[in-house]
Amino acid sequence: MNDSAPLPRGFRAAAVSCGIKRDPTKLDLTLIVSDHAAAAAGVFTQNRVAAAPVQVSRRRVPASIVRAIVVNSGNANACTGDAGLADARQMSQLVAAQLGCPAEAVLVCSTGVIGERLPMTKIEAGIAAALPRLSDAAGTLELAARGIMTTDTVPKLTSRTVELAGRSARISGIAKGAAMIGPNMATMLSFVLTDAAVPHEPLRDALAAAVDCSFNCICVEGHMSTNDTVLLLANGAAGGPTLEGDALSRFRVHLTETCFELAQAIVRDAEGAEHFITINVEGLRSDADARRVAKTVAESPLVKTAIHGADPNWGRFVSAAGYAGVEFDERQLSCWLNGTLLYDHGDPVACDAAALSETLRSHREVTLRLKFELGTARCQFWTCDLTEEYIKLNADYRT
Amino acid sequence: MNDSAPLPRGFRAAAVSCGIKRDPTKLDLTLIVSDHAAAAAGVFTQNRVAAAPVQVSRRRVPASIVRAIVVNSGNANACTGDAGLADARQMSQLVAAQLGCPAEAVLVCSTGVIGERLPMTKIEAGIAAALPRLSDAAGTLELAARGIMTTDTVPKLTSRTVELAGRSARISGIAKGAAMIGPNMATMLSFVLTDAAVPHEPLRDALAAAVDCSFNCICVEGHMSTNDTVLLLANGAAGGPTLEGDALSRFRVHLTETCFELAQAIVRDAEGAEHFITINVEGLRSDADARRVAKTVAESPLVKTAIHGADPNWGRFVSAAGYAGVEFDERQLSCWLNGTLLYDHGDPVACDAAALSETLRSHREVTLRLKFELGTARCQFWTCDLTEEYIKLNADYRT
Repeated sequence: MNDSAPLPRGFRAAAVSCGIKRDPTKLDLTLIVSDHAAAAAGVFTQNRVAAAPVQVSRRRVPASIVRAIVVNSGNANACTGDAGLADARQMSQLVAAQLGCPAEAVLVCSTGVIGERLPMTKIEAGIAAALPRLSDAAGTLELAARGIMTTDTVPKLTSRTVELAGRSARISGIAKGAAMIGPNMATMLSFVLTDAAVPHEPLRDALAAAVDCSFNCICVEGHMSTNDTVLLLANGAAGGPTLEGDALSRFRVHLTETCFELAQAIVRDAEGAEHFITINVEGLRSDADARRVAKTVAESPLVKTAIHGADPNWGRFVSAAGYAGVEFDERQLSCWLNGTLLYDHGDPVACDAAALSETLRSHREVTLRLKFELGTARCQFWTCDLTEEYIKLNADYRT
Repeated sequence: MNDSAPLPRGFRAAAVSCGIKRDPTKLDLTLIVSDHAAAAAGVFTQNRVAAAPVQVSRRRVPASIVRAIVVNSGNANACTGDAGLADARQMSQLVAAQLGCPAEAVLVCSTGVIGERLPMTKIEAGIAAALPRLSDAAGTLELAARGIMTTDTVPKLTSRTVELAGRSARISGIAKGAAMIGPNMATMLSFVLTDAAVPHEPLRDALAAAVDCSFNCICVEGHMSTNDTVLLLANGAAGGPTLEGDALSRFRVHLTETCFELAQAIVRDAEGAEHFITINVEGLRSDADARRVAKTVAESPLVKTAIHGADPNWGRFVSAAGYAGVEFDERQLSCWLNGTLLYDHGDPVACDAAALSETLRSHREVTLRLKFELGTARCQFWTCDLTEEYIKLNADYRT
């Protein structure tokens, strides 16, 4: 049987529709189970207003022995006070009771509308329906990805098989997110599973490094969510020794590529977006400075609307860099759009604006390069344009 | 003769159309002259990519003896390298030659498209045409305000007559700006004139304080301009002693009110905006924290689109506060929209969402209140909603 995106060995998953979303044809609860106790790592939102499931899962991850992740979409269980915290714990308890493990071995996530209580009767029925459907059959990873979607238009999943320490191991991941995307330590929901054997500490380090240059380098509109969570489970079902040395390094590379792919998939599916914009910033004094410039340019509504309007209005790119909080002189800055030099060490460069505008109109992919003369640090960042459709979607989200 | 917004005594102004803007019916050059040497204060953009006129005027203001301000609209003279600096100096030189004063006594400003050279032949003709039209007749302040408009739909001006140290003094101001509004130390162009006698140092302190709680407390989309400039000239033509003590304090209050009025006028005329939003943040540990929270909420596209859509989606307000970089626990936060409590110390409050939505739909004015329990510091901030019209205007700005 052909399955282009299989689950790693020892993992099973299911997704059901339990009535949290209004549309009964939409899946809204995903359950992922590891048959063996898995090592776990997690990166969570830095928002001071953290959703109840974030508060619950954040405390459990360091314990490192995880059996399941239960996720609902359609309701974020955020800003719901003590009652919301009890709901999140109860959600994990319902799964734990069936698996015969402590509630602490079940991680819980939610995504959707903020400020409403979880419909616990529906959640309970959903978990009861999902348990007997747990499977590792072809297509299961995609179902799991569909179960966590909100305004996403496509499921986001990726899977790879790699040789590590003489064994064939798999790394598979899913993600959701199309708005309220503002990078800082983590963004939206993503779950990465591997059957490689990686102990808790190197697993945590590997995830932190991978998230830093992937999920933390994207934005849609820059609003940091209350529910951002990236979880990584490693259950060792591929067999063989725990990874170290070269094998661990190679695992980190593959994990990072997995996160790149999922993070970029979020930006490609950003609400209303018509362009996928890669921002390359180079020549800064520090990585932090490079990221600050890239993020500031990426978040500017004037940059986003210029690209939406196919307007090579480089003054907006350069002026956004100017308020990023990084010290520089404009003579130390040059700027390219889709490979064309527009601003050279502080001076404008004559260009064929009509031709450049035509490349913006006819291509979804846009590359913006900002080169400084201050050092060797760099950052690659991904964002999208800002469109009338984004406004419509977000003005009409609830009402 | 009736003039609701007169110039202060000893000031004359003129505005002409000299062909910088494509539309020949639009004024694009304003000249303001003080018959006596005036004390001057200025606050300029903190953008590292500062326009040529900002670089020129910033150096001249501390010298404090100013005779004129010359301003063009339609071209920002920003990102134009050494040639642009020479153009800005030449623009002031053309005025200085006619007034018989040093070029250093003429301040220069520009606003409009970034990255194009000033059409100096047109500027020269414009200055020559403006000089013989200098006047203090009724309506002149409004003409001056029209001469600095770009995408503004209304001229922004204010004037008041106040008793200071036993003399009747006037404070009059103009401003422009409808986008690329992101507050940090100054924003867009504003010129405030007074015939009160205020020496250079207290004038500078008074302007800094007034700008801090007015122009620095507004945003449209948060993109900090390369050209932001607020200038204040005081020529003492009202007669009487230089202001000090109580009279100076009262001057500061009136100056602040002038700046409030002009700053709010910018937000009321924000591109595409349909709502004027006042954000009251209180109960923080420091003014800086209060401003950080207010600015973060004000800049969130999700907050702006919720209000555009008449959606009392308070989860977006609260979650924006959560990523402002200020430490707090959500139990220390309550939130009101148009006077209705929606979030009480970390718990959602049941409300009539339909009725609240109707107040948003039927009223242009929106008030958002975020109350913390951390201290006594507060901030009042003004912003607008984000609409499809803003996207259209900014996608089509140049092309």
